[in-house]
Amino acid sequence: MAEQGQRRHGYREGLGGELLAEFLGTFVLVLLGCASVAVAVAGLPGSGRQEDAFGPGNWLIISFGWGFAVVFGVYVAGGVSGAHINPAVTLAFAVRRAFPWLKVVPYVVAQLVGAFVAAALVFATYRWAIDAFNAKSGLARDQSLDTFAIFATFPAEYFGGSWWGPLLDQVVGTGVLVLLIFALIDTRNTAPSANMGPFLIGMVVTVIGLSFGTNAGYAINPARDFGPRLWTFLTGWGDIALPGSYEWFSWYFWIPIVGPLIGAVVGAVVYDLFIGSVVAARSGPEPGRAGDREPSEE
Amino acid sequence: MAEQGQRRHGYREGLGGELLAEFLGTFVLVLLGCASVAVAVAGLPGSGRQEDAFGPGNWLIISFGWGFAVVFGVYVAGGVSGAHINPAVTLAFAVRRAFPWLKVVPYVVAQLVGAFVAAALVFATYRWAIDAFNAKSGLARDQSLDTFAIFATFPAEYFGGSWWGPLLDQVVGTGVLVLLIFALIDTRNTAPSANMGPFLIGMVVTVIGLSFGTNAGYAINPARDFGPRLWTFLTGWGDIALPGSYEWFSWYFWIPIVGPLIGAVVGAVVYDLFIGSVVAARSGPEPGRAGDREPSEE
Amino acid sequence: MAEQGQRRHGYREGLGGELLAEFLGTFVLVLLGCASVAVAVAGLPGSGRQEDAFGPGNWLIISFGWGFAVVFGVYVAGGVSGAHINPAVTLAFAVRRAFPWLKVVPYVVAQLVGAFVAAALVFATYRWAIDAFNAKSGLARDQSLDTFAIFATFPAEYFGGSWWGPLLDQVVGTGVLVLLIFALIDTRNTAPSANMGPFLIGMVVTVIGLSFGTNAGYAINPARDFGPRLWTFLTGWGDIALPGSYEWFSWYFWIPIVGPLIGAVVGAVVYDLFIGSVVAARSGPEPGRAGDREPSEE
Amino acid sequence: MAEQGQRRHGYREGLGGELLAEFLGTFVLVLLGCASVAVAVAGLPGSGRQEDAFGPGNWLIISFGWGFAVVFGVYVAGGVSGAHINPAVTLAFAVRRAFPWLKVVPYVVAQLVGAFVAAALVFATYRWAIDAFNAKSGLARDQSLDTFAIFATFPAEYFGGSWWGPLLDQVVGTGVLVLLIFALIDTRNTAPSANMGPFLIGMVVTVIGLSFGTNAGYAINPARDFGPRLWTFLTGWGDIALPGSYEWFSWYFWIPIVGPLIGAVVGAVVYDLFIGSVVAARSGPEPGRAGDREPSEE
Repeated sequence: MAEQGQRRHGYREGLGGELLAEFLGTFVLVLLGCASVAVAVAGLPGSGRQEDAFGPGNWLIISFGWGFAVVFGVYVAGGVSGAHINPAVTLAFAVRRAFPWLKVVPYVVAQLVGAFVAAALVFATYRWAIDAFNAKSGLARDQSLDTFAIFATFPAEYFGGSWWGPLLDQVVGTGVLVLLIFALIDTRNTAPSANMGPFLIGMVVTVIGLSFGTNAGYAINPARDFGPRLWTFLTGWGDIALPGSYEWFSWYFWIPIVGPLIGAVVGAVVYDLFIGSVVAARSGPEPGRAGDREPSEE
Repeated sequence: MAEQGQRRHGYREGLGGELLAEFLGTFVLVLLGCASVAVAVAGLPGSGRQEDAFGPGNWLIISFGWGFAVVFGVYVAGGVSGAHINPAVTLAFAVRRAFPWLKVVPYVVAQLVGAFVAAALVFATYRWAIDAFNAKSGLARDQSLDTFAIFATFPAEYFGGSWWGPLLDQVVGTGVLVLLIFALIDTRNTAPSANMGPFLIGMVVTVIGLSFGTNAGYAINPARDFGPRLWTFLTGWGDIALPGSYEWFSWYFWIPIVGPLIGAVVGAVVYDLFIGSVVAARSGPEPGRAGDREPSEE
Repeated sequence: MAEQGQRRHGYREGLGGELLAEFLGTFVLVLLGCASVAVAVAGLPGSGRQEDAFGPGNWLIISFGWGFAVVFGVYVAGGVSGAHINPAVTLAFAVRRAFPWLKVVPYVVAQLVGAFVAAALVFATYRWAIDAFNAKSGLARDQSLDTFAIFATFPAEYFGGSWWGPLLDQVVGTGVLVLLIFALIDTRNTAPSANMGPFLIGMVVTVIGLSFGTNAGYAINPARDFGPRLWTFLTGWGDIALPGSYEWFSWYFWIPIVGPLIGAVVGAVVYDLFIGSVVAARSGPEPGRAGDREPSEE
Repeated sequence: MAEQGQRRHGYREGLGGELLAEFLGTFVLVLLGCASVAVAVAGLPGSGRQEDAFGPGNWLIISFGWGFAVVFGVYVAGGVSGAHINPAVTLAFAVRRAFPWLKVVPYVVAQLVGAFVAAALVFATYRWAIDAFNAKSGLARDQSLDTFAIFATFPAEYFGGSWWGPLLDQVVGTGVLVLLIFALIDTRNTAPSANMGPFLIGMVVTVIGLSFGTNAGYAINPARDFGPRLWTFLTGWGDIALPGSYEWFSWYFWIPIVGPLIGAVVGAVVYDLFIGSVVAARSGPEPGRAGDREPSEE
């Protein structure tokens, strides 16, 4: 994301610096994002059952919380690694923007570790709130879907056991995310300048929360979901965390991994079919911005 | 909208590329916008009857949802087609900014198709939520104005059968929209640069939602209303969708078409009377920006 | 406000164009602002008594409504008149920024007329909602402080009959407003560029709403308050409107006129004492920006 | 913060001007921030007990209130003093950005005085509201934690008597704050230009409120907390204010001082370890921006 590469091409530090940046960017993303759900679920005085935890006011807290979490995750890592901070975005850049395939696995590992460590810090900071919440509702940790929701996602009850509904939701949500990231960094289109791109990329995640957030918690990022999920599995949420099973669904954990990966490629292809091919034909390739160009279309 | 045209005038791809962009921009607009109403009405746990569905917290979700939907629809299409993504805006540009009349119908068709396809995808993603909502409230789909509201608009009950009230509301809302778009892209005035125009154009729609949204659902865009309305007609909402009839009103569907078209021209004329004519007299015509100039006033 | 004057100094059209711009800018401000209160008080389904009308969710609607109303009022008029759209701001510019005293009265008249006409249009659009609200609460128009609140301001009941409390509130609120406007347009300081100043000036009004809005309705602008007040006096709100009398207070109308005028001068002087004098000493006068300079300090 | 120093290096006025700026910037910060809590707790009609005072809607008012308070505090002081407006930020700049140690104490004193005077003005403006609130809840001032919360912070009840929980919370919150400030002003990274940095720095505080605000009131700034705390001690809140003692905790006041100071250094070191060292290695030192450079790493 975010205009990296415009400023320098030396890569003096090589992959190492990029992985540090992906780690820290994803750490900031998940730290602020998960903690904003903690505020809504267990932090505010008067917080209680699920209906309240995800009422309209709290949904605004969560949507702007995750949105600004992305904003600042991208500002942290943007100048070094391009601030993917999301394996689905990394995949889309590899498939459609010539991001080196060799870097994909290291990037994803750095993102996952960043998300996991962030979840640990959210837990460390909110464990009093979590335990008080569970004591008030009389539930053990491995029965408490509400406190699990601080860290990772699950589908709405109305889907019943259908895996197709939440999977489609993740494909659509991540498709929109990547389509809009591609638009916002395409200088042949109306990409914001003055380094305001990261602000708008974060607001993409805010609006996805406001519009596609309630079906399945808008993971739209495998690292953001699986890192914290692993942490909760290790600290007592049990089956709810992994494999992601509860009353109306079993083995959910793979959906916020597979859905976003599919959606990211779909979103990238849609952008290039409808817009990328047009601006490429109009303006020709932009010299020195190989990463933003679709070679097969020239 | 949004500063296209500043960057290139080749139109190498011609009308085709512009129509792809109008399609995709309107698709993004309606996808994110309608889905944000779906979150408010049927997505959030605890969602219920109409009074709750459109309470203050949900109204903020909807207003920022539609606002950012416009932001990103404009960023997607801005560099190619100018991102009208609204037949009323296209008409205003034809009447007051020398947009070619020959392109008006193709643009409108692309916008309508984009809105229709987006409604289909919102339906596909939210049909579990919609059906669960209707089951809970014990209503058949063609009795459920609340779930219809996810897709298209209807007037408040307090208007009774008056068509003048909602029509005036649509004229005023769209008038403000076009007046402010004209201000925000007028480089002789204080148009934002750094490609931040689309952000502010979207916030125009947010504030219209906050100030003129509750009278009649602020369609302010014939494609945004009629495309999804057609979809709901085809999928079971019956008379509520087309011709738009329910207890206190019959044959509503034409108001969010005619009102915005009138309002857009009014807004454009008001801007030019009060501001456009002044800045033109002060600065003379701007060479190379024919689209932003009012020839009859020079 | 807003960087006008940076771009051209011809004033070919003279005062006439400026007054058209002040009229339209203030019209947009009051139209969007008052209408956002109408949404909160009488528009949303479920709207009811005062406690609900000004609950937290509605307060956010009103604060962002008025804030964006200022944003777009300033974008409309910025390039022509400097977008004061507020007699208190005009006074501050005359006292501390060499704005010509001869223009003060014409500017104020244009602002007042713009506010009055906007109130008329808000009334025209919302009279069904207003009448339905009053019918539901069983009050005649001249007993309905809630619907009056759509248009103009009154002090909180906890002030009792004290005029000092609301007056201080208006001085402080307008002082902050003008202090921050002076900061945001001072290019010797960190004034935003890329014509993003109007966005931030509007957000000043949002934060004043969030922090000093509930004591007395944050008029902080004599035209914004008196124009709509006059309209309501002419259309049935009686003593509540003019002279502004109700159970716990009599003759209120002068406070949102006098308070802002005092506050604006205080805010301007404070800015110049603490910051203006420092940046002037550091950088010397800025040639060609007489309007932003404090002659007595050089 | 905020790009000062880019424009001029004369420091003609020397330390005096900087202290005036730190005073006024911190004054604006605390005035708008504390007053936004006053709106939530005691200003809105229907405000009542703590559960309501800090419900989701009010939490949004407070988070955006404090966020924009920072935005405008930074715009006020940015061009003169760099707008630290926070002793923890001053310390971080001294430790990691070569801010002169000799200026640290004067800066902190100016910040504290600014915060104290702002608290006095908030009290002057809201004392009617505060007294009415306490009268309604039947509490004396020194029993009213809710009205104390307008001015300064206290930990959530669920921490019990543990000082480690709130201290960790303050370290994490301030660590994130400084880490992100360092990212947002680092022109070797993706620092926003067009002087939009202060806007984004304020939004950092908004997202910290949304994500780490409820554990202990997110002081994350010793001056912001201690200045108003001292004011409340002098005006009747007694032990609640100083030393900060109530049912479930004693002697709290040192935590929002020590926690932020530790956290600020941690955040600065983390940024430099993960990002600063990488961008320095890639780009070499930036001539003329000594304040943004980490000498020990070159």
